[in-house]
Amino acid sequence: MTSTKQNDSDHVHVVHADASPVLVVGSVALDSVETPFGKADEVLGGSGTYFSSSASHFAPVQLVGVVGNDYPVHQLEPLRARGVDLSGLETADGSSFRWRGRYRHDLNSAETLETHLGVFSHFAPKIPEQFRRSPFVFLANIDPRLQLQVLDQVESPRLVACDTMNFWIESRRPELVELLGRVDLITLNDGEARQLTEQANLVHAARWILDRGPKHVIIKKGEHGAFMFTNESVFFAPAYPLESVFDPTGAGDSFAGGFIGYLASTNDLSDRAMRRAVVVGSAMGSFAVEKFSNERLLEITRSDIESRVQEFRQLVAFDAELPA
Amino acid sequence: MTSTKQNDSDHVHVVHADASPVLVVGSVALDSVETPFGKADEVLGGSGTYFSSSASHFAPVQLVGVVGNDYPVHQLEPLRARGVDLSGLETADGSSFRWRGRYRHDLNSAETLETHLGVFSHFAPKIPEQFRRSPFVFLANIDPRLQLQVLDQVESPRLVACDTMNFWIESRRPELVELLGRVDLITLNDGEARQLTEQANLVHAARWILDRGPKHVIIKKGEHGAFMFTNESVFFAPAYPLESVFDPTGAGDSFAGGFIGYLASTNDLSDRAMRRAVVVGSAMGSFAVEKFSNERLLEITRSDIESRVQEFRQLVAFDAELPA
Repeated sequence: MTSTKQNDSDHVHVVHADASPVLVVGSVALDSVETPFGKADEVLGGSGTYFSSSASHFAPVQLVGVVGNDYPVHQLEPLRARGVDLSGLETADGSSFRWRGRYRHDLNSAETLETHLGVFSHFAPKIPEQFRRSPFVFLANIDPRLQLQVLDQVESPRLVACDTMNFWIESRRPELVELLGRVDLITLNDGEARQLTEQANLVHAARWILDRGPKHVIIKKGEHGAFMFTNESVFFAPAYPLESVFDPTGAGDSFAGGFIGYLASTNDLSDRAMRRAVVVGSAMGSFAVEKFSNERLLEITRSDIESRVQEFRQLVAFDAELPA
Repeated sequence: MTSTKQNDSDHVHVVHADASPVLVVGSVALDSVETPFGKADEVLGGSGTYFSSSASHFAPVQLVGVVGNDYPVHQLEPLRARGVDLSGLETADGSSFRWRGRYRHDLNSAETLETHLGVFSHFAPKIPEQFRRSPFVFLANIDPRLQLQVLDQVESPRLVACDTMNFWIESRRPELVELLGRVDLITLNDGEARQLTEQANLVHAARWILDRGPKHVIIKKGEHGAFMFTNESVFFAPAYPLESVFDPTGAGDSFAGGFIGYLASTNDLSDRAMRRAVVVGSAMGSFAVEKFSNERLLEITRSDIESRVQEFRQLVAFDAELPA
């Protein structure tokens, strides 16, 4: 059921032979990050790269995005080596998207020191012909107008998921609400869910969103785990209690990559599969934060992932039968 | 295995016939609470009452505390009706402990408007002879000096658990550290765990506490659930995603009551039982916040509790096997 190939960096790269391709449209950036544990300069960043590194453990990934002609393309080699198809990654005249941020001791929220959009500010996603029939589509956190443009170019995907952020909730609310009517699933954090829906209670917030289209709403609470709401049920997966969170950047996109990648690897969209996908996503998010950039995501193996999923199982395992 | 008796308020009161008694030493107060949903004046409050109401669903409870001679004793009738032994509740000359607090829209933290300790400021717990051999002891959130005095009066309990708060961490650190060496388990919230241990990371904080004596450390994160750490494993139970949290007062003590009460009902201290106990505690905490005061805890039935525990099971249930 699996194909194995040896990649450039001597890692064994395993993807299910019958996994469906996953199309992701997102940012490819150069991040400069300071944490209490060290700093990294101009390293591989952006929602598209975290998603791709993570999803590439499960399914073939097709990345659509844009970089400037100053981008150090060798930084993308590890993605290509993991089977990520970069033929949809444009190079435009100008400078690449750069983000500079800092995390303080509690690591809970990034302080953005500098955002330089560069060529990303004129990004108009063009989905290559060969990607348009991908059954799984992830619209990473970009302008909802662009997310809608992507949906105009794809052909009857099985599952479309999107992410968003406070900036778009404020500045593109009508387009975001339109987008809700056209996606199957949305991931957003608890603060964003409350902001979008103007509901303080997360159950009410989830219902507000479900009423506008998506069949699944995933509300991410960072170190406090993630809820998946549907009209029928609620599922919760904790974040893994890590001893050392090194750099929280990209945890949400790595979650999404694990989640969608896992679903694409099974082609199963049952509630059972969706629940496992949330746990796989949580596992991938927990790896992402163990090192700077995509580093940890690019070095872990299938067996690391399976062990972490079992650790999640142990973390919440209990016997629900009360004695008579 | 269970005895059933009809109590005054027509509720069926079911406690395991072979459940061990649980001794709790804590406050019995008059609470006045304002929430966005209403207000309650001078209602049954205090850590001892929430714990007792909750634990009384599982085991016989013995409450030691103090009230002033102004206490409206009829408010304690529902506890007595649920089998709580009040023979250790002193009445002292003076006014009762009163707390007045307010919750804002997010319901996350209480704003204390007024605390009047009254007779509680001179409380010196005297454990009645007939309570001294109780196998399960809960030292609710009172001065660690008093918690130590209680331990000098009890005889080889099977499980001693304690709670504490920021105030004691600041003002009674040496006594609290001494107490850690004499208890089997401590419950505290995440902020308190960080404050006590000066460790930002909860895994490190738990290890700091485990190194000082307790075999189990329960770190409560309010609406974000609770961790139970031992030297061997970590367990996590989410808080139930309620649609309407009415009044968060007493959730932590209700958690402790469900946790200890459940253990006393089974007399089983295996990891399996402890994990179930955390879930039962979480279930009881989730009931406590649905109404003012002890109201909801006093009206629920065994079947309500069992249903809620099953809902917790559904909330976290997933199949950990990844396809080959």
